[in-house]
Parts: sequence; C-alpha cells; structure tokens
Amino acid sequence: MDKRLKYWGWGHEGDGLDAGQTRELLATFVDGFAIRPTDDGAFPTLDALDLPAPRLTPPASVAGLCTTDRHERALHAFGQSQPDSIRCYMGDFAHAPDVVAYPENALDIARLMEWCGVAGAALIPYGGGSSVVGGVTADVDDGFNGVVALDMGRMGRVLEIDEVSRAARIQAGARGPALEAGLRPSGLTLRHFPQSFEHSTLGGWIATRSGGHFATLLTHIDDLVESVAMTTPAGEIASRRLPGSGAGPSPDRFMIGSEGALGVITEAWVRLQGRPVFKATAGYRFADFLDAARAVRAVAQAGLYPANLRIVDGVELQVNGAGDGSFTLMVVSFESADHQVDAWMARAEECCLDHGGRVDVPWRDNPNAHLEGAVGAWREAFIRMPYNRERLTPRGIISDTFETSITWDRFEGFHETIQEATAQAIRHATGRPGAVSCRFSHAYPDGPAPYFAFHAAGRKGALLGQWQAIKDAVSEALIREGGTITHHHAVGRDHQKWYERQRPALFGEVLAAAKKRLDPLGILNPGVIVR
Amino acid sequence: MDKRLKYWGWGHEGDGLDAGQTRELLATFVDGFAIRPTDDGAFPTLDALDLPAPRLTPPASVAGLCTTDRHERALHAFGQSQPDSIRCYMGDFAHAPDVVAYPENALDIARLMEWCGVAGAALIPYGGGSSVVGGVTADVDDGFNGVVALDMGRMGRVLEIDEVSRAARIQAGARGPALEAGLRPSGLTLRHFPQSFEHSTLGGWIATRSGGHFATLLTHIDDLVESVAMTTPAGEIASRRLPGSGAGPSPDRFMIGSEGALGVITEAWVRLQGRPVFKATAGYRFADFLDAARAVRAVAQAGLYPANLRIVDGVELQVNGAGDGSFTLMVVSFESADHQVDAWMARAEECCLDHGGRVDVPWRDNPNAHLEGAVGAWREAFIRMPYNRERLTPRGIISDTFETSITWDRFEGFHETIQEATAQAIRHATGRPGAVSCRFSHAYPDGPAPYFAFHAAGRKGALLGQWQAIKDAVSEALIREGGTITHHHAVGRDHQKWYERQRPALFGEVLAAAKKRLDPLGILNPGVIVR
Repeated sequence: MDKRLKYWGWGHEGDGLDAGQTRELLATFVDGFAIRPTDDGAFPTLDALDLPAPRLTPPASVAGLCTTDRHERALHAFGQSQPDSIRCYMGDFAHAPDVVAYPENALDIARLMEWCGVAGAALIPYGGGSSVVGGVTADVDDGFNGVVALDMGRMGRVLEIDEVSRAARIQAGARGPALEAGLRPSGLTLRHFPQSFEHSTLGGWIATRSGGHFATLLTHIDDLVESVAMTTPAGEIASRRLPGSGAGPSPDRFMIGSEGALGVITEAWVRLQGRPVFKATAGYRFADFLDAARAVRAVAQAGLYPANLRIVDGVELQVNGAGDGSFTLMVVSFESADHQVDAWMARAEECCLDHGGRVDVPWRDNPNAHLEGAVGAWREAFIRMPYNRERLTPRGIISDTFETSITWDRFEGFHETIQEATAQAIRHATGRPGAVSCRFSHAYPDGPAPYFAFHAAGRKGALLGQWQAIKDAVSEALIREGGTITHHHAVGRDHQKWYERQRPALFGEVLAAAKKRLDPLGILNPGVIVR
Repeated sequence: MDKRLKYWGWGHEGDGLDAGQTRELLATFVDGFAIRPTDDGAFPTLDALDLPAPRLTPPASVAGLCTTDRHERALHAFGQSQPDSIRCYMGDFAHAPDVVAYPENALDIARLMEWCGVAGAALIPYGGGSSVVGGVTADVDDGFNGVVALDMGRMGRVLEIDEVSRAARIQAGARGPALEAGLRPSGLTLRHFPQSFEHSTLGGWIATRSGGHFATLLTHIDDLVESVAMTTPAGEIASRRLPGSGAGPSPDRFMIGSEGALGVITEAWVRLQGRPVFKATAGYRFADFLDAARAVRAVAQAGLYPANLRIVDGVELQVNGAGDGSFTLMVVSFESADHQVDAWMARAEECCLDHGGRVDVPWRDNPNAHLEGAVGAWREAFIRMPYNRERLTPRGIISDTFETSITWDRFEGFHETIQEATAQAIRHATGRPGAVSCRFSHAYPDGPAPYFAFHAAGRKGALLGQWQAIKDAVSEALIREGGTITHHHAVGRDHQKWYERQRPALFGEVLAAAKKRLDPLGILNPGVIVR
C-alpha cells in the first residue's frame, strides 16, 4: 500500500528531515540569527482532530465519487501556507471540507457542480494541495451549507502525445512526476519544475500561473499552454489547439490564472521539448547583492535566455547552509537538446565578470557543476525546503516566503524598502529581530522577480496573529512600491485583498461579470479572484 | 504642407507604383498565370464621391476635436482590405463616418464616448486605418443614428523612456516611424515591424494582436507589452507596469486583441531592446516546399530563436518577381545588440542543409546578404506590396491574402487542403483558374503560421461577390481543418462569423458580459468581437 500524504505538512508520512537534519536547521537559526525555537510540540493526531460531522450527503449520481473519510477530510482542509501550518498545529479543523470528491471525467465534474449548486455548497478545486496562499483552504462564509473538495487525483493521465509538434494532451490532475513519466517514452519533456513539482498538478499550475525552473523566457506555465479545457457550472470552455493566434482576446489567458473561481481545468495541450543533451552550469560569487543583480540584468537583456539565472543573497545561503553570509551566489546555466551551449555560456560569463563576479564553480568540462560548491549546497537545500516547515511551526518559528516582480529602474530602492519593511514588521510583531533574505527566482529583460524569505522566533499561541501582522506589512509595501502581490505563488485567499488593489478596478468588475455568467450561484472557490 | 493620405489605397497621394512597375506587375500576372486585367478604371475623385450629409452635430464640449471635412470622412470610410478597395472603387461611401474626431487625451475620448452614447452614435476607433479585415469599416446597423471615427493621430508621442528597464510609455496613436524616431535618441528600439509599419499605430497593433517581423519568439505585439491603459465608456482600465505576474487572469491579455470593441487603448508601456549590431542573413533554395517547411520545424524546435525564419513558395516568388516558380526560398537571419550570432546561424544552417536546402545567399562575411539574390528581390517586393492593390482593383484583378496557424502534425495535409480549396473557390467564383501561394510569416516550435495569397481575374461589377465567395470558402476551410481564422490580421468585420465558430461559445458569452459592463450602450466598434 502507498504511504499516505501528510495532512500537516509536505509529502508522504515518514518523509522529511531526520533528527540530525532538524538539529542542523535549528542550529543555523540559533547560531546565525539568534532565532531560538521554543520547546517542540506535535501536530494533532488524526484521532484527536476535532472534525465537525459532515453537513452534506451526496446524491446517488455522485456518491460513488465522494468520501467523508477522516484522513481525506483532514488532508483537504489545508494547503501548504504558513497560516495553514499554524492552524493545523492548533487543531483548527472547523472549516475542513464536508466531502472530498474524486471525479474521473468532465461529466463527473459537471454533476458535482450541479449537486453543489442545488445543495448550496461551495466547491473547492484541489490539485496537489501545494498552495502557499490559501488557494485550497476551505474558509468559506456562512452562506454556504457545506464544502466539497474536488480532488483531481483520478484525472492524471497523459492522453495523447504529438511528437511532430512536440505537444501533449494531459489531464489536469497529473502530478509532476507522473506527467514526466508519461512523457518519457516519447523522449520529450515539459520541463516545468516548480519547487512543488512532486505534489502539484498540471491543472493547478495552469490555474495559478505557476513558475517553473526556467529563469528566463518560459518562466510561467502560461508560455507552455497550447490549449485548455475547463468545465464550469454553465458548460465547457475548450480552446482550439493553436501554435499562435490573433483572434480576439486570448481565451487561454482568461482561463490561465482563474484559480478555480471560474471553472475547473480538466485538461490541456502543453508544449514539450527534447530532453536536454547539452548543459553548462557555472557559479559566481559577488561581494555585493546589487552587483549580482546588475549582472542578472546584463544577461537578461543580452538575449541569451539561460535556463537558470538566479542570485541568492548571503542570508539565504547561510540559512540553507550554503554560505557564510559574506557573499551572494549567482547560478547560470544553459541547456539544449539541440546544440552545444558554449557560445551562450561564454557570453553570459563575460556579463557576470564585468559586474564584479568571481568564478565559484567553473562551467568548462564540468558536467557536475550543478552539484559542486555553493551551487550544489544551495540546490540540495532548495529541494529539501518544503519539509522544513513541519519542524519549525511546532517550535514557534515563523518561516515564510513571498515573491514579486518589479522593473529594473525601481529594483534597487524597492529591494531596500521591502527588506526593511519586512525586518521592521518582524520586530514589531515578535519584539525581536529576525532574518530576511532575497533571491531572484526569475529574470526578465525589463525586471527581476525577487523572492524574499523571512524567519522569526514567534510565540506559540500567538503565531497566527504574528504571521498575519508581518504578511500585512510586506504585502502593503509590495503594492505601495509598485510590485505585484505575486509573481508565481498566485492569489488565493491570502493575497486577495492586495490583489484587488493591484488589479484595475474595472477589470475586477469584468471578472465579476464573467463569474456571474459561468458560475451564477458563486459556488466555485469562493473568496478567491472574485469576491 | 504634408501630402494627404489616399482614401482609395495605401500611403500618401503621389506614392505608389509608377507606370513601369505597374506594367511589370501586370505582366507577371498575365505571363505567369494567365490572369488578365480588364481595361483600367479610376477610383472616384473626392468631388465625385456621393457622401451623405453628416447626421451628427457634435456638442460644444467636443466640437473642437471634430471635423466633417469631405476628405477626412472619405479617408475614414475604409481600411485596406480587398472589399474596402472594391467598394471604394465602386463609390460606395454610403456608410462613411458622419464625423471624424481627433482626441488629444483620454479625457477627450471619454467625452466623445459620452456624446456618442447620448446621440445613439457608433464610435469606431481608428489608428492607421491599415486593417485588412474590415476592422475600421464603418458598416454599422440601422440602430445607430450615426458614426464617429475616432482617429488617434493626435495622441502619437513617446512619453517616457526607461533606459534601465528598456521600456517606454508611448501613446496609442504613434505610427511606426514616429515611434521609432522618438526612441532613437535612447539607442533603443521596439523593433515591431508589421508590413503596415508606416501606416499603423501602437494602439492598433495592441488592439489587433499585430505580428511583427520577428518570425520566432517575439512574434506578436502581445509579447512586447508591459502594461496597457484603455478608456471605456465605464471608465479607465490601466494595468500595472510589471515584468511578469501571476496575479489572476492577465488584464493585459484581456485588452490585447479587443479590437476597439471593449475600449480605446490610449497608451502602453512596451519592452524595448538595443539596436542590433550583429546580424547574419542567409538564403536557401528548396526544390520542395514541404522540405523547406521541415527545415523551418527543425530550426523552430532547436531553441535558436532566429529573427527571420521564413519560407516563400515558388508561386509567391514568381508573383513578386523573385523567382521562376521552380524553387522555394528560405530566409534565415539572426540579430543581436549583444553578441556575435555565428554559432546560432551555423547551427540553423545545418538544419536547413539537413532537409535538402542549398545555399542561395551565404551568410559568412556577407553584411548585405539581405539585399542579395532572391532574398533581396523578395524583400523589395514585400515592402512595395501594399501599393499593388490600387493598381489591380481598377483592372478587375482580385488579389488578397489570408493567414492562419496550425500544429506541425497537421500542417502538410492542411496546406494541401487549403491551397486546393482556394484554387477551387477561384474557379467557381470567376470561371477561371487563378494563382495561390503560401509562405510562412512566423514559426513556432509547435507549428507554423502559413500565409496564403491568391490572385484571380474577376469581372468588374461582380468583384465584391466574387471576392466574398472565395473568402467564404477559404475561411470555411480554415475553421473546418483546425486552423485559426487569423494569426495576426485580426478579426474585424470580415472574420467575425468564423471567429465565432473558432471561439469557445461560452468564452464568447464572457466577452459579451464584459462588453455589457464596459460599453453598456454597445457603441464601440459594433459588429466586431462581440455582436
């Protein structure tokens, strides 16, 4: 039997940091930043969970797709956000979904929507449950008679591969590893690797405008979508498979980013590529984070389109055991299924050296560059990162990330303002200094996508309020200073308020009109995108 | 005094083919394809035009922006489509706009919208008037009390250049040459060069999802837009300037392609780049068009992103005096402001030779490659092409183009079906064979954008019906065979019927709901996008 997924954290039961890794993580916080854990605590056991009795009884037409199993309800109560973790730790399952449904096709989804409409229930689409912004957290208002979590787990197949056009038709519930496994026989790959890859789905990526590992060019899933099919309470919207089109406003771009509030994405044609054969990776050290940022700008504006073009500041390296805090790391890599990438890499290296970078890991004749030195150390920490939180929340440590984008002309002042606003918010909320770090997750010719992390010693029992105070302050600063409330984490419930400030007001009304047409009873993911 | 723009054709009065060039063009049709012109005729003079008396009188608040000058009304009666040309030749100006308005800012536009709402008039946004699909043709139904053409010509300035982020804020009415002239002092360039460049505007490009000269990667203006401001009868929608965002469905992608039916685009921030310093262009000959198409696929899937990657079949070369009909030409070019492009070009050349191409114009040490041989001859014809029609319509020759995109797996059969459907429609409509040709205007990893041209000897007096019969047949074939009704010519009035078949029906209702919110009286470009 497969291991069960944790309802309190990342991945499967039994997976995660071992005792030694946990000690190391905590020691980094204490030694590097005087962020001291409280005594350890435990997430509530399944038996101990205070789960309200289900308020909904599915009718015969959909009963076979539905379950009220305790573990299933607990698993679908939260995503992977910091407040989700805190509330799970506190045993706050009052809002858990009443029913979890596993549709097997679009017709099942239509039937579930019909039932929810009749029953006055909210329907929350659920892919891998990896939302870090409350996108699947079932906090719906009292106007609903119950909540159904719609888990796409049984719609996870690769349906069709077109090797000539390099595209595939894939069901929305396909998780990253299954999706890539399904493509493997063709020799093609999607190569969309968000940090959540293992436990997130194609449909979730499309619904939330997920960002993959490509730091330039094909940054968002948006760029890889050829067509989308979405089921709504009013019927299906399925766009035509086209390499490019100029026929009116893009129907795809309307569905992409709709976060389950306008419909449930059921499948998509996505663009594939050959598996990379030629690769080059290099690491550079910069004494100054802003010099590294200028190097990123130079490479991003050179038209080279590296697969990786990331900088990680000293604090983030230190927190992840990949540096001593004295330098910023820059990782540049190129990959191709078609040709040697030496000319590309050589020119990118010139840009890095021009801006004060020093080679940390060289790329020439170095096929293992991505595993070496600070590059390899940070990469390993990056993969492990989602497992950290379940060790921190029970010890009173708040540890969260937020991300944005901003044009280059404003970046340097913006970076300083956001870092300072975050540090100050931590001091206000917790009475102590914390740690704030920045890296670039993606880079564009006209600006970077800075990704911030913060860590603070909180007070158990007060964690939720402390986190919210910090979140409010940084979100306020992001919007005030001209950034986006999210570059690729999506809106969810946690960002909705600031998203509404960022979004042109009248465009919000357009979306409301669209929702009224597609979801007239307002049952789909209430509170997200359109309130 | 500036030369006036022609109301009957392309460009300024006095510009166009001279007698010798016209003879050459006609000789090509006669000698190559037995397409024989009728006797020459003349477009009606301005004095002879049967222009109905204006039905509208602007109120004082906007009177200063408005004119009912005969030339202005005639100029704004038509775009640059084949039926526009035929109707102009026939003197069919019954639908000419009653008033032409030249707003100077967004407030003027709002006032004009308010007046049109009160007056029951339709408002037709007009950029450069280069629509080849009836996008500015004022054919509105009898429910309107008149028509106002909204010419953006007085909103044509480059307002702001951000050299750090490489972006500029530009008013929507800026025509190509003025836009590039405004950018020149910064050393930066938009490099969006549709064939209509001289007489089309930034706002028009955005409203119609224009395709530029880049054959790969930055194919549509969509990719160059950082933010958009649009005035609607319900107020303004202005998106935030961001390099990338994942916050809900993209407001930009909703405005891009809205074709003046949801609002009037007033300005945009667009992404710029450095002026190219390094360039390489090569020409290849292929005995077989489909071999050339396979070479395009290989290059498009190699991740090289050439600026030019076009193939032109034998018929199109012959029509344009650039070939004898015995070969297909492929043009490949790379350009960069940053680095030598030899490695890129060398690999692309391998792909071409692998698929049976033979070098026609070599690229090494050949800075004038783009001017040489068939490459140069076709380029020169391409630039002159918009001037052809005013010489052909008065001689009874129907000469039109249509374009689409399709995935590679279906391309070869699609190409055959569309060519045959077009040839057959010409025979049916005119009783004689015509000429049908194909080139690729743009290419994607998952498919090409084929661009077809057709030429036929029609019968004067019956031209409009003959053209419509051919247009109906090819549009039907495009939609039936899975293509898009337009890759970059837009929808306009001429494609609306097929666009509605291509578009997911429910997405059409979403757009209708959006229009109802933004333009409740339905005054904006009626008949386009939302009917």
